[in-house]
Amino acid sequence: MPHATRRAALRATLRDRELDALLVTNLLNIRYLTGFTGSNAALLVSAESDAGTVFCTDGRYLTQAERQVPDLERVIDRPCDLALAQRAHKDGVRRAGFESHHVTVDGLDALGDAAEDVELVRAPGLVEQLRLVKDDAEVEALRMACAAADRALASLIEHGGLRAGRTEREIARELESRMLDHGAAGPSFESIVATGANSAVPHHRPTDAVVHAGDLVKLDFGALVDGYHSDMTRTLVVGQAADWQRELYELVATAQQAGRHALAPGAAVSDVDRAAREVIERAGHGDQFLHGLGHGVGLQIHEAPALSKAGDGTLLPGMAVTVEPGVYLAGKGGVRIEDTLVVREGGPELLTLTTKELVVV
Amino acid sequence: MPHATRRAALRATLRDRELDALLVTNLLNIRYLTGFTGSNAALLVSAESDAGTVFCTDGRYLTQAERQVPDLERVIDRPCDLALAQRAHKDGVRRAGFESHHVTVDGLDALGDAAEDVELVRAPGLVEQLRLVKDDAEVEALRMACAAADRALASLIEHGGLRAGRTEREIARELESRMLDHGAAGPSFESIVATGANSAVPHHRPTDAVVHAGDLVKLDFGALVDGYHSDMTRTLVVGQAADWQRELYELVATAQQAGRHALAPGAAVSDVDRAAREVIERAGHGDQFLHGLGHGVGLQIHEAPALSKAGDGTLLPGMAVTVEPGVYLAGKGGVRIEDTLVVREGGPELLTLTTKELVVV
Repeated sequence: MPHATRRAALRATLRDRELDALLVTNLLNIRYLTGFTGSNAALLVSAESDAGTVFCTDGRYLTQAERQVPDLERVIDRPCDLALAQRAHKDGVRRAGFESHHVTVDGLDALGDAAEDVELVRAPGLVEQLRLVKDDAEVEALRMACAAADRALASLIEHGGLRAGRTEREIARELESRMLDHGAAGPSFESIVATGANSAVPHHRPTDAVVHAGDLVKLDFGALVDGYHSDMTRTLVVGQAADWQRELYELVATAQQAGRHALAPGAAVSDVDRAAREVIERAGHGDQFLHGLGHGVGLQIHEAPALSKAGDGTLLPGMAVTVEPGVYLAGKGGVRIEDTLVVREGGPELLTLTTKELVVV
Repeated sequence: MPHATRRAALRATLRDRELDALLVTNLLNIRYLTGFTGSNAALLVSAESDAGTVFCTDGRYLTQAERQVPDLERVIDRPCDLALAQRAHKDGVRRAGFESHHVTVDGLDALGDAAEDVELVRAPGLVEQLRLVKDDAEVEALRMACAAADRALASLIEHGGLRAGRTEREIARELESRMLDHGAAGPSFESIVATGANSAVPHHRPTDAVVHAGDLVKLDFGALVDGYHSDMTRTLVVGQAADWQRELYELVATAQQAGRHALAPGAAVSDVDRAAREVIERAGHGDQFLHGLGHGVGLQIHEAPALSKAGDGTLLPGMAVTVEPGVYLAGKGGVRIEDTLVVREGGPELLTLTTKELVVV
């Protein structure tokens, strides 16, 4: 049971901080700790054991909670956060942590009233800290999410879905549909399909712009599987690639490789960013690579760690991150190449397996 | 410009509360006040005029902000909330409201540091209060969203998409695809398709369960257009309807009509709930109608007002709400019928136009 193992890890953190319990209100953190996927819940994790840990949801999720959270005491009530704050009081909790990065200013007032004499202690990011390093079940979900995206792109190309005359919107829709065919519950974010000069816009939303022969087409997309998000970008050329496109592609691919090679346990995240950025700067395109190199992925499409110039901290084995340098020539076209990888001793594990050779369709 | 009109309305509220400005950090509220649709922004609304009002987003949205927010001063910075808190200080703001129902406990600390000697005053729900009553532009977006859902269901049925042998998942996917064909940017929430005994689960998620002749099939779905959410439920029978199904349907349809008829400016929301609930209770099925009668819809799929037993407040002309009673016979089947409507003098305006006669396909 990965959820019980995760709760045990959290418990050690609680004891370090002399907290009797943690009131978890962030739904993703609740999912991580229990497997519950509904839209309303709270969780009171006892620092002692699962025996004193209580899960709360509302009546809509009665059956689902029985199935997904069979191993914890379940309370059906509403609002859940206040119900568990009262429960903490009844159970004699003295010091209860709360997620101060998630609980609102007004929300804390209500919690304080409900918890009566329980001391509510700021405890931001404790579960997020655990979520930084993915366990086997999480990596497996990410692997499946990445595979769904890989297969969707392969089948899109194989069936001629990427061709001159189609619109960005049509391609995005077919790509998303093919991800569903390959096991995704949905796209992991709004797919980016950007053709021609639009490929120079880092976060372009698909429009009715038509693909023309000779266009760079940038596809940034991902699949959602069991709550986990994959993230991949490939940039292709339709028709025939011009020399400037090949050179630009080569540059970004080299930078991306440098970034991947820099992914090692113990590496500073800013150094990973620099490894890729230097390649682009040396080629005189530093000003056209305006975003960070990458970000963590998991239950969120963007989560810690940020791989960027200003990023703090170092990599740990089991972190799942993207590496996605890009160079954008305004009005002309851009190239971004992005993988999702897991940091490992001995070199990162690549989860997005689509080729990074320049594909011309 | 509806956005300028909305900001003017907010300004009156700010002056009533003797606030010099409001720092808006909820993205939906920012969209409501400016039209900006990106994923990162903040807005400092001056109580004086638009001249002192400042919009902030980050570099990814530079072009988009120029297009969507041409009428306000734009700042490109990150994090936006802190940039505008500093700006409030520089501009000599004395009392600035903040969205205490949205700003987190940790977030307020950071705001306080950035704002220096500006007094930060709790101002929860000011924009949400305005959003309760929809203006013409909003109703038009809701109308288009409802039309996309209506047309999708009609074309699904017309093309034989609802038939014995198909799975819930297949039907949900086709329905969502047809909403895109009819102008939706996407589904407005995860579609519910529930066949046979599954129809008795209020919030069933589509599975590989197969539709059998004689099944009740409950479809609860909606379209997203320009950020506005439609919400509609229809329950159909495949093959031939049994007497108990017709009776159950008739009961829910009568209750739903009673609920719609009770939608009038000045009506207490709890009375609207009661009007429908009494019909079901009189038939002895009160225990099988476990949820509220309806909810507001707009930029969120669930927003105020809640039409429920415990709901507070009264209806105003221009509120957009759902009316969705249901009776769920565990292990057997359930019926829910739901419309999206706008409260008007002289009777509600129905936005979801699909027939409420029992459809047998």
